[in-house]
Amino acid sequence: MAKIQLGIAGASGYGGQELLRLAVRHDDIEIAVAMSSAGNNETQELPALKNLWNGRIEPFSIEKLIAKSEVVFLGLPDGISAELAPKLVKNERKVFDLSGAFRLRDKELRKQWYPKSPSLPAITTYGLPEWNREDLSTANLVACAGCYPTAAILALKPLVKAGLLVDKTDIYIDAKSGVSGAGKKPSERTHFSEVHGSIAAYGIFSHRHAAEIEQELQRPVTFVPHLVPLDRGILETIYTRVKPGTTDDTIREALDVYQKSPFVRLTGNTPPEIKHVVHTNFCDIGWILDDTRLVLVACIDNLVKGAAGQALQSFNIAHDLEESKGLL
Amino acid sequence: MAKIQLGIAGASGYGGQELLRLAVRHDDIEIAVAMSSAGNNETQELPALKNLWNGRIEPFSIEKLIAKSEVVFLGLPDGISAELAPKLVKNERKVFDLSGAFRLRDKELRKQWYPKSPSLPAITTYGLPEWNREDLSTANLVACAGCYPTAAILALKPLVKAGLLVDKTDIYIDAKSGVSGAGKKPSERTHFSEVHGSIAAYGIFSHRHAAEIEQELQRPVTFVPHLVPLDRGILETIYTRVKPGTTDDTIREALDVYQKSPFVRLTGNTPPEIKHVVHTNFCDIGWILDDTRLVLVACIDNLVKGAAGQALQSFNIAHDLEESKGLL
Amino acid sequence: MAKIQLGIAGASGYGGQELLRLAVRHDDIEIAVAMSSAGNNETQELPALKNLWNGRIEPFSIEKLIAKSEVVFLGLPDGISAELAPKLVKNERKVFDLSGAFRLRDKELRKQWYPKSPSLPAITTYGLPEWNREDLSTANLVACAGCYPTAAILALKPLVKAGLLVDKTDIYIDAKSGVSGAGKKPSERTHFSEVHGSIAAYGIFSHRHAAEIEQELQRPVTFVPHLVPLDRGILETIYTRVKPGTTDDTIREALDVYQKSPFVRLTGNTPPEIKHVVHTNFCDIGWILDDTRLVLVACIDNLVKGAAGQALQSFNIAHDLEESKGLL
Amino acid sequence: MAKIQLGIAGASGYGGQELLRLAVRHDDIEIAVAMSSAGNNETQELPALKNLWNGRIEPFSIEKLIAKSEVVFLGLPDGISAELAPKLVKNERKVFDLSGAFRLRDKELRKQWYPKSPSLPAITTYGLPEWNREDLSTANLVACAGCYPTAAILALKPLVKAGLLVDKTDIYIDAKSGVSGAGKKPSERTHFSEVHGSIAAYGIFSHRHAAEIEQELQRPVTFVPHLVPLDRGILETIYTRVKPGTTDDTIREALDVYQKSPFVRLTGNTPPEIKHVVHTNFCDIGWILDDTRLVLVACIDNLVKGAAGQALQSFNIAHDLEESKGLL
Repeated sequence: MAKIQLGIAGASGYGGQELLRLAVRHDDIEIAVAMSSAGNNETQELPALKNLWNGRIEPFSIEKLIAKSEVVFLGLPDGISAELAPKLVKNERKVFDLSGAFRLRDKELRKQWYPKSPSLPAITTYGLPEWNREDLSTANLVACAGCYPTAAILALKPLVKAGLLVDKTDIYIDAKSGVSGAGKKPSERTHFSEVHGSIAAYGIFSHRHAAEIEQELQRPVTFVPHLVPLDRGILETIYTRVKPGTTDDTIREALDVYQKSPFVRLTGNTPPEIKHVVHTNFCDIGWILDDTRLVLVACIDNLVKGAAGQALQSFNIAHDLEESKGLL
Repeated sequence: MAKIQLGIAGASGYGGQELLRLAVRHDDIEIAVAMSSAGNNETQELPALKNLWNGRIEPFSIEKLIAKSEVVFLGLPDGISAELAPKLVKNERKVFDLSGAFRLRDKELRKQWYPKSPSLPAITTYGLPEWNREDLSTANLVACAGCYPTAAILALKPLVKAGLLVDKTDIYIDAKSGVSGAGKKPSERTHFSEVHGSIAAYGIFSHRHAAEIEQELQRPVTFVPHLVPLDRGILETIYTRVKPGTTDDTIREALDVYQKSPFVRLTGNTPPEIKHVVHTNFCDIGWILDDTRLVLVACIDNLVKGAAGQALQSFNIAHDLEESKGLL
Repeated sequence: MAKIQLGIAGASGYGGQELLRLAVRHDDIEIAVAMSSAGNNETQELPALKNLWNGRIEPFSIEKLIAKSEVVFLGLPDGISAELAPKLVKNERKVFDLSGAFRLRDKELRKQWYPKSPSLPAITTYGLPEWNREDLSTANLVACAGCYPTAAILALKPLVKAGLLVDKTDIYIDAKSGVSGAGKKPSERTHFSEVHGSIAAYGIFSHRHAAEIEQELQRPVTFVPHLVPLDRGILETIYTRVKPGTTDDTIREALDVYQKSPFVRLTGNTPPEIKHVVHTNFCDIGWILDDTRLVLVACIDNLVKGAAGQALQSFNIAHDLEESKGLL
Repeated sequence: MAKIQLGIAGASGYGGQELLRLAVRHDDIEIAVAMSSAGNNETQELPALKNLWNGRIEPFSIEKLIAKSEVVFLGLPDGISAELAPKLVKNERKVFDLSGAFRLRDKELRKQWYPKSPSLPAITTYGLPEWNREDLSTANLVACAGCYPTAAILALKPLVKAGLLVDKTDIYIDAKSGVSGAGKKPSERTHFSEVHGSIAAYGIFSHRHAAEIEQELQRPVTFVPHLVPLDRGILETIYTRVKPGTTDDTIREALDVYQKSPFVRLTGNTPPEIKHVVHTNFCDIGWILDDTRLVLVACIDNLVKGAAGQALQSFNIAHDLEESKGLL
């Protein structure tokens, strides 16, 4: 089989670099072109990938991207993806977009949170493969799930669908994220001396990932992200109430919906830890029930299952390859 | 005025060292003796305190502790404090206990969580000075508030007392702590390579600090602590519901109970961050209200306001000194 | 081809876990048995490897290890390897030993630094494959190079062999290591709160890796290791004097001895950084020359190129497989 | 005694903030004005200093700075200090400059490394109080010693002055620094994800602190700084050769020159560690001798003894106050 010609835009960001790292090891992929608008007009090498990938990151050119690629991965800021993805779709390139630009289906919500992407390209699909497997091959544009939503939805959706949560009960998602989630652009917020030895909550009641989680769960949630002093990884502690009569077994049965999902691992009543998922595409989920009080803990590597790995997992499914190819 | 002769037991632990560091700078204190049962029978020097304190930590001896001290600070494991504190009280030494042994007033709860301290010495007081100032001078034994409870109670108690929370609503306390809170004893849990780059929830529904918080608030809470990769500091994100009609101003007025408390700082709708309180005795508290949903964020340095500093603050009040003496 | 039956002793240590992680992905290896003497008598699962490896770590048994394995990897303390390796060799099992027990060929030096391994099993080879490729297939016991020596020898040996260093000039090796290099056993030295925010030199003039480096270079060196607050990775800054007339090109030519070594990457006059080699089997080497003053910088991941990866690289060569199999 | 009216320019940088923190606790200082050119034209509060200092940082104005201050501390980039300090001196304000602009006395060297400060104001003194005590009170401008040079000079100068080093022997200074030393300005170099889990050497043969060290020692040195994943602190490992016959006692006697210096602590043959000096004005120095090979280890907090604390120590001496006032 001929290798699929892959184009990557935004290859010098953290998500883009992770994608390159994964793609060079994938037997069915040939990196046709990797581009970045960051930096000057010269090509650049990635020191970490030397001897693994002989290519260079090129300055961005949409013409070249279209000419060289069959499939395009976008690791770009929302506003830039919003502009670029429709052009690629129009040119019949299949797009896996790591940004948030096209994740929200509701027009009003999208206008609020992503004003630069007023309309969705035809056949846009949300890319959380554990729940949207069947749509991936026909989609023109896969709007890959966000990092925070991935862990939250994977943990909560089975319980919501099984009707285990008390109607209208509160759902609190306390999320802790490593700094790579904030992107590569230097800022006071990402300065080592500001992060090291500290923890900061941010975006309380104002983070757009809340809308994404609510869209997928069809339930309101309270979502509070925190920046913690680690590079990679997200851990979410989720608090809610289940209906009386719900048992540990009921929870487990609901979560067993993932039995055939190679990247969701249940840890039972032992809460999962970031160190077990870092540099992997796994989402580990544990829970503890005390009468009707339920605490769920879910964790992922934000750059893999929360970004590049998830995109590649969707790519595999879309191309009828083994779901875990290049990801174990 | 003659200096108060202070004895410290458990001086080589993290809380004990912090206490020494503070006490050597305190004009009204003379460190009469600092003891530790850790290590061998030899005295030891603390390299960090060289040129600041010329003493040495001595092997533990209760006779010597009683003979030399007027006031004793205990920075010991619960079980050892449970045994030692009553003897000191019986010998008319005023005791500030940093352990949890005598914090719970309910006999059944104490039996459950601190089985080695079945009874309370006469005139035992809970040591959270913002709320128990008046009892400190007459107490024989001050059971200094725990690190996690300090932040949670300081943030929630004004709202509970003002009647702002919805009756029987859930209160969720998501706590993130630095590793020094786990004590100095080496374990797999505190190994650098296990903590670095990871986050772990622990003690879900089984941490005894929940009982302490519930005692002081007279409300049930769900409390989940996490170990995060930093040395010092606790940040707690608290989720609950307030009664309809509650406004930002109502919250602020309730929290203004601390106007004369030098160590509680309100940050308004800007969530506080650990970096601003580390190495200080401050507790910073912020909040954000969205209709009836309330998120509170509180943070402290677990070794200062959560342990040694709080003990010294209580000591100051008990001895009619300025509350902030040696703590600014 | 039938898979090679691999036995691992010391599988729950950091080196052992890394080996498992690599071995499960290696097409020609079947993990016949993984053992650990740590913990109790029960088998244990590694949460990080769930879904990747379905085995469990078993309590140690030399009989079972011999019965099940063709090839044995030892990730054990020196003293235990010293006892175990000769028995395995006697039973005709090929051994890759990650400990230091059999690295020093000089009897007196071995007596001094590794008193528990007085004699070397027949056909013992030092396992630094870039320099000992040809001996690996015939060896009974491969004494894999130590973590610190790997970086130092790879950087210096080409220059020594090319005769570029001034005769009898001093060679200073300032090494900085992550904490996983200190092993998994909890101690005050590896407690998070002792390492975080600090740096400590140790073993000055008394670290046995100095003898190993001197053996391979046939030159005396001054070696000072430091513990720094990171989990994985070693960076060594090396200071020495080259003969007058030596140029940047002369240095590069000498280091080009690694042109066919897939795991040594030259970074030229840009000093390499740990972040580019972590989780890989690469050793990155850079240098800067100022007249006759030479500064070399070399770095590796101590658990991969400094331990498990290097053992696997040696295994590949010994079994006539591609040197980089399972390591890219 | 009336308090000395202190002006601070650059108060929002890391050095400036540390200075504020120290100055607010100093009994003889009144912070007349604290200014910063960073940010917009509004005044700003420092959350960490709330309740300790009621002032606000004001936009920069040289007229106001001159009008309000008797003594000025400059925590500014070299180029800005170069322009500002002479104006302040001309207006008869005593200046303590934390930048490097005026540290080098040799005109050619200054031209090379600090081209914006071609000439020195009259009575400019180098500010390393252990060696320049007597000049501080008469100086118009105190060019406070740099962070790296402080540790290196304090460790080496006594040995050089005592004639213990072999003539023309190499002196290698391997320095490891926390990230706050790189300043507050966000850059790729200071991004958390670039620093965390990594170590990088930089400025090899091209760091201007080498010239400063050489000026004070009157000996050539090889100086290589490294960025390590910690916020504060510098540790330097220094390698050189002493003359035959030099003993451990000889070294100690030479270093005993600091017996009356309250901020230099000798740790003997136990190498000092950053954790013992962080947040203090101490410089800890240890050494190990092996025949004629000498390894010295010195460490400081780069923001205290390497910047703000040292400036305040010099200020104390210059104003005939106790050297350690406000610094213990």
